[in-house]
Amino acid sequence: MKNIHAKFTTILQVRPDDIDMNKHVHSSRYLDYVLAARFDQMERCYKMPMQSFLDIGLSWYIKTSHIEFIRPLKINDHFSVTTNIESFYNKGVKIEFEINRKENNKICSKGFMDCSLIDINSGRSITIPDDIKKLYEI
Amino acid sequence: MKNIHAKFTTILQVRPDDIDMNKHVHSSRYLDYVLAARFDQMERCYKMPMQSFLDIGLSWYIKTSHIEFIRPLKINDHFSVTTNIESFYNKGVKIEFEINRKENNKICSKGFMDCSLIDINSGRSITIPDDIKKLYEI
Amino acid sequence: MKNIHAKFTTILQVRPDDIDMNKHVHSSRYLDYVLAARFDQMERCYKMPMQSFLDIGLSWYIKTSHIEFIRPLKINDHFSVTTNIESFYNKGVKIEFEINRKENNKICSKGFMDCSLIDINSGRSITIPDDIKKLYEI
Amino acid sequence: MKNIHAKFTTILQVRPDDIDMNKHVHSSRYLDYVLAARFDQMERCYKMPMQSFLDIGLSWYIKTSHIEFIRPLKINDHFSVTTNIESFYNKGVKIEFEINRKENNKICSKGFMDCSLIDINSGRSITIPDDIKKLYEI
Repeated sequence: MKNIHAKFTTILQVRPDDIDMNKHVHSSRYLDYVLAARFDQMERCYKMPMQSFLDIGLSWYIKTSHIEFIRPLKINDHFSVTTNIESFYNKGVKIEFEINRKENNKICSKGFMDCSLIDINSGRSITIPDDIKKLYEI
Repeated sequence: MKNIHAKFTTILQVRPDDIDMNKHVHSSRYLDYVLAARFDQMERCYKMPMQSFLDIGLSWYIKTSHIEFIRPLKINDHFSVTTNIESFYNKGVKIEFEINRKENNKICSKGFMDCSLIDINSGRSITIPDDIKKLYEI
Repeated sequence: MKNIHAKFTTILQVRPDDIDMNKHVHSSRYLDYVLAARFDQMERCYKMPMQSFLDIGLSWYIKTSHIEFIRPLKINDHFSVTTNIESFYNKGVKIEFEINRKENNKICSKGFMDCSLIDINSGRSITIPDDIKKLYEI
Repeated sequence: MKNIHAKFTTILQVRPDDIDMNKHVHSSRYLDYVLAARFDQMERCYKMPMQSFLDIGLSWYIKTSHIEFIRPLKINDHFSVTTNIESFYNKGVKIEFEINRKENNKICSKGFMDCSLIDINSGRSITIPDDIKKLYEI
């Protein structure tokens, strides 16, 4: 049985250097948008900001990113990034995301990331501790 | 006599890819922050968005940027970018800016940009038309 | 039967602003590395640079990117990006890539992109013309 | 009397995500080009790579950047970044740079950076040690 996890949304805006020669957001920027949203949501929604992971010698490593580009974001656009945990692995989480233009709520991009929790000193992935898993099970 | 022009402020936030190996915003990002603020302010405050310049065959070209880095912005920081026109050249404007961390309002960076108005077709700078100059004289 | 298409390699180097707080290349940069390699290879290997597509009103649109992050690239690293066409769609190509650190030839990342050929005026994807398909069938 | 210091040159190439809506390199990228050249030259020319500074608890902090944008770099361009130390401060160096398009050697940008040597632990700028100053006096 698949658990259903909470969806969280962060509002961001396009910056000029994100724009490519077609006057669209360059495809390489969407992953940073998703990460910006997750950093915000780690602090605001899961109540454990990235800094708290770093303070106990842990960090998150992106193993895989998969992004579908559906409609281009453009200059001055504001947009929402909605993410949720799709499933837990032993040593990480699969995070789904969706990016929507704020003006008309049309979907611009969707996809997922597989993220592993790593021990900063060893550089190796570790099993998610129970107390962290509990925070993420909302 | 030097005219005094209005100051406008835009609130932005740091994104993960802006961060460098020292956990500070990389110095190359501050100029994009200033431009993001100006794009917002062109639309919201001067009532002539960049797109309206493009629509009549004009664009802005940055001739010079001068940036002092005072205190580093960090991950998850929100900050304000306050800009004002310092003076008009025949074919452009000198824009001053100041970036302040939102949490404590401490100054992080300040500087200026010289911007020329250019004709997109010829690529050459042109005298600022009177109706545009009027918009910018607030 | 699957055709075998030529593999091409481009050498690039990491820039300081690519580096994140872990002293690794930020995950959002790998897609730009792949695109930089393809732009080089379009001109040098397929003999049809991006500008030639633009000149006849065509462009390439990335529909999907899929990236596995295997070993991090680091500051000052030089690396190779090897790409090949994996298969043709009616209106696009699937491109595979592999990124290897130059110093020890260890694989750092691999994945694929689905790219559609689009008509710039309509914004719609089009069937790849035969003369272009021929260039890409090497 | 002003000392004359050696000029060093690094060749780099434009990447697709550097390009803006005008099909020029976005103005915020030039500072990263200069830093990429300095990182290369620290290792190759001054024989003390950034990592060697970090290993002894030191780092470089950019206090000021001043950039003139003369001719735009464009997609697929290769270019040289030539830098030299213009003068020593007590706690830092003033570095001049010039960026030239490789194809025709025309100047695209020039400017300077003031860089302070800092103690990573305290975050404060320090007097440049004599042995490091000697390396930089070539």
